[in-house]
Order: sequence, then structure tokens, then C-alpha cells
Amino acid sequence: MHIDGNTRVYAVIGDPVTAVRSPEWFNALFDRNGVNAVLIALQVKRGDLATVFAGLKTIGNLDGLVVTMPHKNAMCELLDELGPAARTIGAVNAARRMPDGRWQGDMFDGRGCVRGLLDQGHELANRSVFLLGTGAAGSAVAFALAEAGVKQLIIDDVDADRSAAVAQRVKQVFPAVDVRTGKLDPGTVHDLVINATPLGMKADDPLPFEPASLAPSTLVVDVITKPVVTPLLEKARSLDMKIHSGNHMHAGQAVEAARFFGLKI
Amino acid sequence: MHIDGNTRVYAVIGDPVTAVRSPEWFNALFDRNGVNAVLIALQVKRGDLATVFAGLKTIGNLDGLVVTMPHKNAMCELLDELGPAARTIGAVNAARRMPDGRWQGDMFDGRGCVRGLLDQGHELANRSVFLLGTGAAGSAVAFALAEAGVKQLIIDDVDADRSAAVAQRVKQVFPAVDVRTGKLDPGTVHDLVINATPLGMKADDPLPFEPASLAPSTLVVDVITKPVVTPLLEKARSLDMKIHSGNHMHAGQAVEAARFFGLKI
Repeated sequence: MHIDGNTRVYAVIGDPVTAVRSPEWFNALFDRNGVNAVLIALQVKRGDLATVFAGLKTIGNLDGLVVTMPHKNAMCELLDELGPAARTIGAVNAARRMPDGRWQGDMFDGRGCVRGLLDQGHELANRSVFLLGTGAAGSAVAFALAEAGVKQLIIDDVDADRSAAVAQRVKQVFPAVDVRTGKLDPGTVHDLVINATPLGMKADDPLPFEPASLAPSTLVVDVITKPVVTPLLEKARSLDMKIHSGNHMHAGQAVEAARFFGLKI
Repeated sequence: MHIDGNTRVYAVIGDPVTAVRSPEWFNALFDRNGVNAVLIALQVKRGDLATVFAGLKTIGNLDGLVVTMPHKNAMCELLDELGPAARTIGAVNAARRMPDGRWQGDMFDGRGCVRGLLDQGHELANRSVFLLGTGAAGSAVAFALAEAGVKQLIIDDVDADRSAAVAQRVKQVFPAVDVRTGKLDPGTVHDLVINATPLGMKADDPLPFEPASLAPSTLVVDVITKPVVTPLLEKARSLDMKIHSGNHMHAGQAVEAARFFGLKI
């Protein structure tokens, strides 16, 4: 990688940022495509978002931002315009300067997840999915799974109101999909069970759910990228179950966000 | 170079930044010293400095800034504390977050220039120097040359008040040095003649002075780094005169500023 005065700058903003993988994904993409650009990680505390964004958006060669926790929702308020996924979910994970100077945000978590699953050969049409976690990433994944044509989508969250609201909104947009809230029932067979909670990022986190309680045919999916193989995936693998790590989702996301930034990738 | 979520971030802020060499100097330094850090160039318009700095200084993993035109003077107002060179010159070219969270600035243009000259084997003690340009870089160079023990320092600027003020301040601090303002007189032999004006950055700039009018023994010095060989140096070289490019000054500066940032370099 070569950085000079003509390098276009992108940043992922979040707190903490020590575990973010965006710099690796994006810089590898820029490198492979011969684009003179760099993406760095910036640690921005929750209360500093407005001040930092006011500064960053006036920088002439800073063209786009990847937005991660805890700013995915709050960032919506600061942007001039939201794309369709961001409007529906109420959260963004990418923002860009438009030719007229205004800033627009959109959400690529969900499409990245679907792209990652399909790229790894996992069909989604007519499948049954259980999704745990309906924060910004989980909500986006719910919409994208429905859009991809799953047959059934059961969602759960420690915040029951939040999962109910997400189920209702997904159902409104995709009435053909059987969307509801529910608990993970060991007696029910799902084709995919997805962890979209943060459980697994810290070494002493409990498992978000127990893979041993699932049918052995279940594909166990995690959206966490660090560690690449979470304790959940480790356990599922030790039970000879199929696993799918957060890396695939985020690799797909990086391509979609880089194109959103206007780069030829 | 590898950038991840633990990479410490530095930036050079200026406008324009297309010609800045700091990313190359600093990133090579970081790489050689095994430091997980990156320096990027950010284009910050004159009127946006306060807004951008308010944002940048709250970013947790952004530890220091290199400050270039047109912000070297204005930046002083925004910092909590100035180092001795910055206080004397009224300009900074580097700023850092201190352990207590306050931001301190200092000026390394002059010391970088002296270090570069000495590293290339050019003695300064008891030499006679003509210096053209007393902006932030030129003023810093004037102080550092006096500090390095030149015998005589004649300075000139299109702004006669500015060069008179700089001469007076240098004289106050280094009374043993013969410091005065004056024009470049073809009849007078100087050991070094230094261009510290921006003339030579743009392709159609006139030469800051005519090397053919100088004694053939003169060392012709330019502080401009892009192009590395300015039209002034090109002309001097074609006359078989010794030349010294801005690169040497800036390589020295990068080391001094990186240490100021607290890096083990």
C-alpha cells in the first residue's frame, strides 16, 4: 500500500475499533483494484459523533465513512439523506459525500450477509431461519433474508419490543414470508440459525445459544468477525455441524460499500 | 504497511495536500521502526480548520498532526500549549495530544533544515547565509540557522515588515549572529543561498532568484519538496553549482516530529 497526497481517504468510525476488520477488507480491495485510497479506523466515542462528523465531512479528500457500533442509529440524524435500506431499518453502516456536497447513508449489513451466504453455496430461497439479535446488524439481516426469499424467519432479542417491531416491519415489506418472533425451540428444525448479538466478541461471553440443542443439519452462522471462529462456531464445529463465519458477510459488505463510495471495484 | 483496528493514526492537514511528502516520510519511518501507525493527508480548507480540529482532537486513536500551509499560524490559536520554537515563531508544524488530553504544538521546520544540511556534510558554523522568504518555514529556518552558529544571516521577503520583524527577533535571541534584512546582491559571496518562498511549486512560477548571478561556490538550497529538483535547483545544477533539495530538510523533520509524537524512532 502506498499513501501520498493524492490518496482518497475513508474511515470506519466506532468505539471500540480494535476489533474492526474494515481496514483489512477495504485496503485489500483498493490494492487489488489499483485504487489510490486508504481506509483507517477512528475511535469515536458515542457523545463525540456529531463533533467528529462535523469535522470529517468538511475534509476535501475524505469521501466516505463506514459506520459501526455504537453509531449506526445516531448517524442517521446527522446525514442529509438516507438510502432505502437505511430508512427502513433506521440505521446506516456507510455514508458518502454526494456530488452536490450533501452526505447520504445506507445500510449494507444485510445485503453483505446474504451475498456471503450465497457465495459460500448456501441456498436461502424457501429455507427456514432463526435469527437471534435485532440491533442494527440483526435488523438489516432480517430484511435481507426476507428479500432473498426465505420461507420462514423467526426472530428473537433480549428486547422483546424491538424484535416485535422488526418482525412487523419485515412482514409489511415482505408479506409472503412467514415472519414472527419466537424462542429457539430445540424441537424445531431450522436450516440456518444466526447469531446477530455481540455475544462472542469478549472471551468470557456466554454462548448466545447452545449448538448441541440444534438439529445436526443446522448451518450455524455468526456475524462476529473477531475472533473469526467464535466460541459458538468452535462448539458447532466440534459437533460436526456446518458453520459460516462473519468474515463472509463483511467481505461482501466491503464490496457493496466501496461501490456505494463510487469506486470502480 | 498493514492497517488494522489497533493502528495509531496521524494526519498532515493542509490545502492543497496533493504535493505533501509527509505520508511517504512518516510511513517509511513507521515501517522501518515496526510501529503500528499510519499518516494520511487530509485536505482542510482555511476556513474549516477550527471545525476539523475540534473533531480530530476528540478521536481516541488520533495522536498527532503535521500542520502545513495555510494552517501553520492559525493552528497556534487552537492549541492548549506551544513549545519554545512555536512560541518564538508564532507558527507550528506539528501538534500532539499530551497525556492529560491537552494539545501542544511545536515547530520543526528549522531544526529539520539544519539537521538535513549537517547530515549531507554541509557545515553551518561561521558560514554566511542569504535566506529568501520569512513565512512560517522561513522564520523557523532563520532561527535554527542562528542557533546552529552561522556567522551572518541576511534575510529578505516581499513583505519587508515581516522580514524586519523576523530579523529583529532572531537578533534578540542570538545577539552573536550578524542578522539583518537585505537584498540578494550579486557582488556579495554567500556560502548558502536558501529559497524558503513557495516559488517553484507551480510549473509556471518564476525563479525566486537567478543562480547565475551568484558566486559559483554557493550552495543553493530549496525547501520545496515537490518537485524534488525545482527549476531553481535544476538551473543551479546546470551551472555546476552545489544544490540541496527540500527532501533532506523534511526527512530530518519527520524524525523530529515522530519523536515529538512520542513514538520510539
